[in-house]
Amino acid sequence: MEHYKKLLALHKEIELIGEAESILGWDSEVMMPEGSSDNRAEQLATLAVIAHNKSTSQEYKDLLDRALAEKKTLSKTQKVNLAELKRNYVHANCLPTDLVSELTKVSKKCEMVWRTAKEQNDYMKVRPIFGELLKLVRQEAKCKAEALKVSPYQAMLDQYDPYRKLEEVDTIFAELREKLPPLIEQIRAKQGMKTKLHGKFPIEKQKELGLSYMKKVGFDFTQGRLDISTHPFCGGTPDDVRITTRYREDEFIQSFEGIMHETGHALYEQGLPKAHRYEPIGQAAGIATHESQSLFVEYQICRSKTFLKDLHKQLFKYFKLDKQIWTFEHFYQMVNWVEPSFIRVEADEVTYPLHVIMRYELEKAMVEGDLEVDELPNAWNSKMKKYLGIVPANVGEGCMQDIHWFGGGFGYFPSYTLGALTAAQLKAKMSTQLNFDKHLSQQNFLPIIEWLRQNVHSKGALYSGDGLLNEVTGASLNPKFFLDYVANKFL
Amino acid sequence: MEHYKKLLALHKEIELIGEAESILGWDSEVMMPEGSSDNRAEQLATLAVIAHNKSTSQEYKDLLDRALAEKKTLSKTQKVNLAELKRNYVHANCLPTDLVSELTKVSKKCEMVWRTAKEQNDYMKVRPIFGELLKLVRQEAKCKAEALKVSPYQAMLDQYDPYRKLEEVDTIFAELREKLPPLIEQIRAKQGMKTKLHGKFPIEKQKELGLSYMKKVGFDFTQGRLDISTHPFCGGTPDDVRITTRYREDEFIQSFEGIMHETGHALYEQGLPKAHRYEPIGQAAGIATHESQSLFVEYQICRSKTFLKDLHKQLFKYFKLDKQIWTFEHFYQMVNWVEPSFIRVEADEVTYPLHVIMRYELEKAMVEGDLEVDELPNAWNSKMKKYLGIVPANVGEGCMQDIHWFGGGFGYFPSYTLGALTAAQLKAKMSTQLNFDKHLSQQNFLPIIEWLRQNVHSKGALYSGDGLLNEVTGASLNPKFFLDYVANKFL
Repeated sequence: MEHYKKLLALHKEIELIGEAESILGWDSEVMMPEGSSDNRAEQLATLAVIAHNKSTSQEYKDLLDRALAEKKTLSKTQKVNLAELKRNYVHANCLPTDLVSELTKVSKKCEMVWRTAKEQNDYMKVRPIFGELLKLVRQEAKCKAEALKVSPYQAMLDQYDPYRKLEEVDTIFAELREKLPPLIEQIRAKQGMKTKLHGKFPIEKQKELGLSYMKKVGFDFTQGRLDISTHPFCGGTPDDVRITTRYREDEFIQSFEGIMHETGHALYEQGLPKAHRYEPIGQAAGIATHESQSLFVEYQICRSKTFLKDLHKQLFKYFKLDKQIWTFEHFYQMVNWVEPSFIRVEADEVTYPLHVIMRYELEKAMVEGDLEVDELPNAWNSKMKKYLGIVPANVGEGCMQDIHWFGGGFGYFPSYTLGALTAAQLKAKMSTQLNFDKHLSQQNFLPIIEWLRQNVHSKGALYSGDGLLNEVTGASLNPKFFLDYVANKFL
Repeated sequence: MEHYKKLLALHKEIELIGEAESILGWDSEVMMPEGSSDNRAEQLATLAVIAHNKSTSQEYKDLLDRALAEKKTLSKTQKVNLAELKRNYVHANCLPTDLVSELTKVSKKCEMVWRTAKEQNDYMKVRPIFGELLKLVRQEAKCKAEALKVSPYQAMLDQYDPYRKLEEVDTIFAELREKLPPLIEQIRAKQGMKTKLHGKFPIEKQKELGLSYMKKVGFDFTQGRLDISTHPFCGGTPDDVRITTRYREDEFIQSFEGIMHETGHALYEQGLPKAHRYEPIGQAAGIATHESQSLFVEYQICRSKTFLKDLHKQLFKYFKLDKQIWTFEHFYQMVNWVEPSFIRVEADEVTYPLHVIMRYELEKAMVEGDLEVDELPNAWNSKMKKYLGIVPANVGEGCMQDIHWFGGGFGYFPSYTLGALTAAQLKAKMSTQLNFDKHLSQQNFLPIIEWLRQNVHSKGALYSGDGLLNEVTGASLNPKFFLDYVANKFL
């Protein structure tokens, strides 16, 4: 037990370096002046190398070996921690230090270039550094693949969503690829004509509205913040959760839903088991589970008829809107309108999985060497045409819209859809244990959040994503719950 | 040369950790939610220990020894770097790792407690943790004193203002202690009755005004920011300079001067030699020189009649003020009014040194074990009575007003006055080389800032504070220039 404890202490140190990096990462997106990016990239690379060196040090290895030798003295949860500490070691130890340093620097720089290139719709501007980055990512994937004895893309996926099998993802995505298009056609045939709603939405008022709902669902502002960034995200640490959104004056629902989405992530972070803080099991059960929590709040709660009835009433307190035009029916239709569109983060929940599936196919091809940087814009457009029947007019609303790849994040995208499916499956289970709609109609979010806290948040990473779902719902991830939910809601 | 270069690379790594800490420190003051302070303290302590361990590692020592052995192959500036690298080693190596970790954690926590305790005027609330902190500071001072073979306070001073001799400080302060009180009496007899000026100053407008003058004097906003914090400061890194201020709606001059003070610091950081970035000589020449740059901007520029004439004209563009009452004479009098007061940062430039001298005496006594935490409030009040003839009504405007001691900063205070004196001496020299008043009257700040950049900023830490002054003005620091400046201006 002695070596296990020492190993945990070393892990805590590595975690704290990661948390410092996370706050600095938030700062890069939200606060940092543009001319400081090289300096920040050097800081982050230095910290990443230090953390990497600690994770792959002889000290770590010795402690791990000794802790494994005393395994039988450990409790069940301690064994889970130990298994994760070993998994971390394998993931870290396979990467050369130089690669870690280069990856951190180049991804930070590429992300900065992407920001302006995206605004200017100029893929050629980001292409050179993105090409450099992809080369490094392929090296990373190769190292991990060899160490984990799996395919390169499976190895990348494993970083974000531990123990998720690619075959499972393929099976699920195949089912969605087959069943969603006819479903979308049916929904579109049924939903009739769209009424365009216009209004002016002062940013200050949008912020107030967002903050008020963050409070209602239980976001702890003594350990978190809401700010603005180009690409909304949830960052920081479990004790200091930083979420961001972006505002437009002619529209408020994207920003509101963005806030609630990130609040779902934040509630997970704030609900992680404090008793296991800085331990592997004190963390989230993979990114797909994380996305299930954000999408539970965004879809299952905030896009439901019951919730929107209350939000609709609130609108007139915050914004000057014509009640004759802004009827509930029009508003509900606006929020839940189903239609193929270019921007993933603005997509409806039915077409959204197709956005993810095409990204999954593209990033897998990029990681495995089957798609080059130069070919991406065309490949993007073909996939878009194939799955959604539309072609973007420029790269800004095409292959450059998301930050992920340009920040070195490959293997993350599937989690959005796995998360949406997980949320639907959790919601089905929850509904057998509490009266979801009744609580929601009374604006009583806390029993719902408390259920998530007890069944998901407080479990940390005691189970894998799919393991947790089995614990809570008695079954592995199954797209049936999502497809039923969609059919019920829209048909 | 090979080992010297390797040592510099190691130093750069240590510097970058310090820069990460600096951004996180800024975040603690400006952005961090209150409930995250323990988490942040752990992050900072982890980074501090890592930097400390690198600074005192066998690798550092070996490289240093070898670099010293190849000293004769180095250029003059490289030799200065090497001497600084050695000095850093002595400063770091004398402290046990545990002490570094404890100091970081306890000072961060004490600072957080101080924030609320100050608001509540409750010294007893901060007393226990402040007592703990002082104990650690005394250990720190003792370690450094033994390593440097000087007195404990001299050792603390040396951290902020390298090579500054305590005897020099004592001589200068003795002269000020003798000459300032009669000077203040004379000025007060001459200045007549004060006209109270009132107004409402919307914070947005104050910010605009501040930003406009930051631009005018050449602050580079692509590598810096202006924000709000309880205790204004200049932080960040030379490539990412973060200055802060605080606003009040019934007053604007404190905030404006605060912005310009921190801008003076920022210009120094932004003007440091880029060719020596991450090297010891790429840094500022001690904190007294740093304060000379902030006070040059705040006093020599922004409190001069010429500058204030322009500022006075601008006021009516930003704020609704009665021109009959807000005459230039009244405004000039308001800015340059001399009168003993409680709050150091709001003090006029003539009584200011007395605020510093009393803090110097108190902190020296605290560090050297002659004054205990329990005795501080009374000791403060007696000194205040003795030097300024007034006694504060509570600890908020008494011994708790400044962040320094409660954040573990002992040995910093003398720099404010040494800086003011340095600024006056630099100004005297500058005036022999360019027409200060003419440039100022034309709002042409750039030749003045350029002079500072060439003579001070771009020199980095090639010289000590006093060494630089000798290079530029041909003489060591002499209070005569400041006393002359005050007499000329006010009598």
